[in-house]
Amino acid sequence: MKLLEERIQRDGIIREGNVLKVDSFINHQMDTELFWEMAKEWKRLFAGEQITKILTIEASGIGIAAVVAREFQVPVVFAKKSMSINLDNDNYSTKIESFTHGRIYDVIVSKKFLTASDRVLIIDDFLANGCALMGLLELVERAGATVAGIGVAIEKGFQRGGELIRARGIHLESLAIVDAMDARTGTIQFREK
Amino acid sequence: MKLLEERIQRDGIIREGNVLKVDSFINHQMDTELFWEMAKEWKRLFAGEQITKILTIEASGIGIAAVVAREFQVPVVFAKKSMSINLDNDNYSTKIESFTHGRIYDVIVSKKFLTASDRVLIIDDFLANGCALMGLLELVERAGATVAGIGVAIEKGFQRGGELIRARGIHLESLAIVDAMDARTGTIQFREK
Repeated sequence: MKLLEERIQRDGIIREGNVLKVDSFINHQMDTELFWEMAKEWKRLFAGEQITKILTIEASGIGIAAVVAREFQVPVVFAKKSMSINLDNDNYSTKIESFTHGRIYDVIVSKKFLTASDRVLIIDDFLANGCALMGLLELVERAGATVAGIGVAIEKGFQRGGELIRARGIHLESLAIVDAMDARTGTIQFREK
Repeated sequence: MKLLEERIQRDGIIREGNVLKVDSFINHQMDTELFWEMAKEWKRLFAGEQITKILTIEASGIGIAAVVAREFQVPVVFAKKSMSINLDNDNYSTKIESFTHGRIYDVIVSKKFLTASDRVLIIDDFLANGCALMGLLELVERAGATVAGIGVAIEKGFQRGGELIRARGIHLESLAIVDAMDARTGTIQFREK
């Protein structure tokens, strides 16, 4: 998606260790007009999939997923990363490793909000090693629901997550795939579609 | 706001210990059409306030705040609850106590995204004892920005948060104020406006 690539080019900051900071428009400060353009693009790419539910994971996926849910006119559920008194005991849960926070999380969704009749579109801001998405896929599977697709804003094409997910035959649409980036020169190379 | 009160009446679940569960439409599964109606109501209530930024706190405030930001056509920033490699060291931070999770959090906003010229509308799903909002107010103050107002979906009118905030002269708009609720009978009493 040209608009997103140009925005990453303009406002993204590359740091040593393959860190791409997009905190001015995606995952700390959020540009919801951009999210809306992304939502419309996913609507086009997943047309005919009869999505009944959007699923994401707290925290940085929620803003994008909320705008996407309004565009698809379906409810959105965010998986929680820890147990709180607002959760019942009747949940699907799994464990994932977070690259960003350097720790292991419990990821939890109430059984009430994922059912066998759901056709789920999973939305997240980043795809790198794929740990978070694999966790969400597992929750959908446990619920007996169908994964209609995965929409990711930015995929790090030089890490293995995208490859692993596509190898499972899942319809994955990353709006920008970064194949290489250089912290010294500040250059980013996007994959041609 | 009638629409929200009716929805709480219909889909909210009251638990012992003054817990009001609205996880089917507000803070686990989210109804973004409802959020949009709430956003339009806040737009009306804060008309003329010249809001330049929406501020919320992860995680359950983000969905509402994203929809509100689109309605106000301004950026939205969510305060983070822990340090990650995506955050610079140049932050405003404070500590808050979470009733829901029973622990103390660091709440952090990058200095880049709150500035002295900002007129900030703070958005959150719940107001009970006010700890989270007090933390956000402190961050806005440290940035030298102006608090234009606070919009809360559900205020627990029998706890002290709302009173404390109004006593500071802050323009607080809670779309539903629960003055009493009874877990045995399932009845909820809303404050008359």
